[in-house]
Amino acid sequence: MAQLRAFESAARAGGEIPEIVCYEKQADWGGQWNYTWRTGLDEHGEPVHSSMYRHLWSNGPKEALEFAEYTFDDHFGRPISSYPPREVLWDYINGRAENSGVKKYVQFSTVVRWVDFDPQTERFTVTVEDLETGTTSAREFDHVVVGSGHFSTPNTPYFTGIETFPGRLCHAHDFRGAEGLAGQDVLLIGASYSAEDIGVQSFKMGARSVTFSYRTAPMGFDWPEGMEELPLVERFDGSVVHFSNGETRRFDAVVLCTGYLHHYPFLPSDLALDSPNCLYPDHLYRGVVSEANDRLFYLGAQDQWFTFNMFDAQAWYVRDVIMGRIALPDAAEQRRDIDAWRERFASLQTAGDEIRFQADYIRDLIDLTDYPAFDLDRVVEIFLAWKADKQEDVLTYRDKVYPSVLTGTMASVHHTPWLQELDDSLERYLSDPVDDEVATLVTEEEDRAATT
Amino acid sequence: MAQLRAFESAARAGGEIPEIVCYEKQADWGGQWNYTWRTGLDEHGEPVHSSMYRHLWSNGPKEALEFAEYTFDDHFGRPISSYPPREVLWDYINGRAENSGVKKYVQFSTVVRWVDFDPQTERFTVTVEDLETGTTSAREFDHVVVGSGHFSTPNTPYFTGIETFPGRLCHAHDFRGAEGLAGQDVLLIGASYSAEDIGVQSFKMGARSVTFSYRTAPMGFDWPEGMEELPLVERFDGSVVHFSNGETRRFDAVVLCTGYLHHYPFLPSDLALDSPNCLYPDHLYRGVVSEANDRLFYLGAQDQWFTFNMFDAQAWYVRDVIMGRIALPDAAEQRRDIDAWRERFASLQTAGDEIRFQADYIRDLIDLTDYPAFDLDRVVEIFLAWKADKQEDVLTYRDKVYPSVLTGTMASVHHTPWLQELDDSLERYLSDPVDDEVATLVTEEEDRAATT
Repeated sequence: MAQLRAFESAARAGGEIPEIVCYEKQADWGGQWNYTWRTGLDEHGEPVHSSMYRHLWSNGPKEALEFAEYTFDDHFGRPISSYPPREVLWDYINGRAENSGVKKYVQFSTVVRWVDFDPQTERFTVTVEDLETGTTSAREFDHVVVGSGHFSTPNTPYFTGIETFPGRLCHAHDFRGAEGLAGQDVLLIGASYSAEDIGVQSFKMGARSVTFSYRTAPMGFDWPEGMEELPLVERFDGSVVHFSNGETRRFDAVVLCTGYLHHYPFLPSDLALDSPNCLYPDHLYRGVVSEANDRLFYLGAQDQWFTFNMFDAQAWYVRDVIMGRIALPDAAEQRRDIDAWRERFASLQTAGDEIRFQADYIRDLIDLTDYPAFDLDRVVEIFLAWKADKQEDVLTYRDKVYPSVLTGTMASVHHTPWLQELDDSLERYLSDPVDDEVATLVTEEEDRAATT
Repeated sequence: MAQLRAFESAARAGGEIPEIVCYEKQADWGGQWNYTWRTGLDEHGEPVHSSMYRHLWSNGPKEALEFAEYTFDDHFGRPISSYPPREVLWDYINGRAENSGVKKYVQFSTVVRWVDFDPQTERFTVTVEDLETGTTSAREFDHVVVGSGHFSTPNTPYFTGIETFPGRLCHAHDFRGAEGLAGQDVLLIGASYSAEDIGVQSFKMGARSVTFSYRTAPMGFDWPEGMEELPLVERFDGSVVHFSNGETRRFDAVVLCTGYLHHYPFLPSDLALDSPNCLYPDHLYRGVVSEANDRLFYLGAQDQWFTFNMFDAQAWYVRDVIMGRIALPDAAEQRRDIDAWRERFASLQTAGDEIRFQADYIRDLIDLTDYPAFDLDRVVEIFLAWKADKQEDVLTYRDKVYPSVLTGTMASVHHTPWLQELDDSLERYLSDPVDDEVATLVTEEEDRAATT
C-alpha cells in the first residue's frame, strides 16, 4: 500500500510513473490488519497471511506510526486515543489508500507462484495464479518490489515431548482470541511482543494463570498475581511442562510465541532474502535494494519500531530509484554502506539505541525524496515514554495519551479503560457511551413525561 | 511409495528402469500416516501435509487395503487385528518400502516449487527448494508423477458469524487429538469420515456432547446418548449456533469436517487436475494419465474405498506406460474411455455400487501389468460387511475381525476393546497385556516363593 501510494503521489505531482501491477494473495488489502477467522490455510489452500487476533489493540502509540502525509486528523477529523484497536487502524490505512485511488493497481486473490529473472533481458517473469479461477499466467516486469512482510510464517521450534501435549496448542500466528482461555492455565513460550500481548489478553479474558517461558531473559514486567515468568521449557510430559530451572506446571493451553521466518516461496534462492528478524538485514542496500539484483526491492524487511511511516520512507525511495530519480551507487559502494550500517547495528545496546538507529535510517531515506519530513526525534521520545509507561504497568499503558508529532493534536482518553473494554469494534470505539447513556436517560425521562 | 516400489519390482525382475528422483516435502515418507504435532505450517513454513491425529485407528478393515505383494503376514509374521492404529499401519507401509531399498530415490525435505513443460523438447523443468538449506534448483524430466494426495488442503467454507465464535475452532486437517475436548460440547460440521471419526473420538475421550451438522443427509448411525445429528449450521452468534431447522445449541469447540481440495500450487493450470473429490475425476485416462499431457500422471487422485492396493495397481500401470511396455491410445480413444467410466460413475446409487465400481477399475489396471491378481470380489464383500458392522454399532465396529483375502489368515481380536484402548502405540498394540499380566503374577509368586 505504501508503494502504490508513493507512485500515486508522484503521478499527482505530474511525474510519469511506470505501469504498475500489484498482486495480493488476500481478497482485500491491509496485510496484517486484515483480520480473518481462518487459521493455517485459507479458503484457497494458501497459507493465511494475517497473524491478527480479536481484541488486538495497537501495542505502540499511534503517534509513533502516523503517516506524515495522511494524519489521523486527516482521516478521523477529531482526536482519538493513542492505542486504537485493530479495526480502527485498518480503517486508517484503508482510508488513505482508498482516497489515493490506488486500488485499480491491485489484482486481489492472486498469488505469486514463481519469479524468474533473465540476466539477458534484465527482466523478471512473474507467474501468478488467480485463486478465484485457478488460472495461472505469467507476465514480464522490469522491477519487482516484495512487500509480503515477514510476520506471517511461524517459527515453530520443537520441544521434547510436545507431541504428547493433549491441550490446545498453536503458534501465535494461529491465535485468534483469548476468550476461550477463561479459567485455563495458559503457557506462552516466548518473551517478545506476541508473548507479552497474548499473555495480557489472556489475563484480561480471565485465564486462571498465565505463565511465560523465556530463552534468554524475562520481560521483567511487574506482573500481577496469576502471571509469572519461568525460564525455557525443557520438555513436555502430557499436560505437565518441565522448565529448565526444575519447576513443573500443568497447562490447558500453550501458545508458541516463538517468532516468524522470512519466507519467500516464490523466489529462487539467489534472490530470496535470507535473514533473521533484525534491524538491518544483510544484503539490502539502504534496507530495501537487493544486493543480488538492483531491480529487486524489499519493503519492511527489517524488524520494526517504526512501521507505517518507515514503510512510506522506503516506498518513496524505491519509487525514485525505479523512476530513475535516484541513481544507485556501484556494488562496492553499496557494500560499504551496508557494512557501515550493520556495524552500527551490531553495537546497539538498548531499546533506545535501536529506536534512534531506526529513526536515523528513516531520516536518511526521507532526505533523498519528497516525502514530508517530520520530527523523528520527537517520535523517539514518544517511543521511550511508551517503554516507560509499559514498564510502569503493562496492563494499563494503553490508557495513556500522546500528542501527534505532525499536527500537535493531543490524543483523547478512550471512554473505557483498556482492561475493561471488551468490544473492539470501530463503532464502539468511535461512539461516546457516556453521552449516549445521558441521551438514553433524557429520552427515558421524556418518555415518562409524555406518558404521565 | 507405491510408484517407487513398482519400479524397483521391475528392476528386480531384470527390467531396465529409468532414472528416478522423488521429491518429498516432509522429512520422512508415509504421507498421511506420518503423524506430526504441527498444524498449519511446518518448521519450514510449508503447509503441513498430514491430517493425522493421535488415537486414529484405521476406519476400514486392513484386509481391504492389504498390498497384494507384501501382506500383513509378510510384515508382522503373525495375525494382528483388523483395525490397527496409525503407527502400526505406518510401520507396515514403511516396512515394505524399506525392504524394497527405494529410499535412495527420495530427496526428503525438498518441496517442488514449480513445474514447467516445454512442448518443443517434451520435457518438464522441475524447480525445487531444499528446505534444509533454502537452496532452489531446477532439473529436467521426461515424466512427472504427482503423488501428493488430495486430503491435505482443507476446504473451509464460511458460515455467517463464524468469526464471532470464541471457542476452539479448526478444520479436521488441523485436529490432533480429542483429549482436550473432555467435558466439552463439541460441534462437527460434516457428515463424512472426518466427522464420523472425530465425533466418535470425542465421545471416547469424554466430550460432554457431540453434535454433527449435515448438509445433505445425516450419517444415520444409532448414536448413543450424548451424540446427535442436526441439519446444516445457519449461523454463529458467539458460542451459540443456529441450525437450519431452527434449533440452537451452545458449543465449546467446533471442528470443520468439510473435506479437502485438490491443490497443486506447483503446477500451471493447464496441467493441474481440477476436480471435486470423486471416484472418477475427469481428464484422467485410466484414472492416472493426464489428458492434457500424457507424460504427466496422478496417483490416488480418486476418492477412495480401496487405498494402498489401488495405489499399487495405478503405480504398476504408470510404470509400464513410462517404460514403454504399455502404449497409450490416441486422444480420442482416451476420451471415449474416460467418458464410459464417468457415465457408469454417474449412475452409481449405493455404497456397494461405488465399491464394486472401484474394484472393477482396479481389476482393469491389474490385468494390464504383472501386479499380483487378488480376489477383488472378496474384498468387496469385506467392505460390505464393514459397512454393516458400522451400521450396527459405530462405537464397536473396530473390534470385529476379518480373514486376509491374500493369505487366508484370520485377524486376531485385539487384547482391548477399541473404546477402552487409550494407548495407540505400536508397542502397546503388539504387546500381550494378558500374558504380560500373567507373567508378572508368576514372577511375583516366584519372588514370594524365593523370599519365604
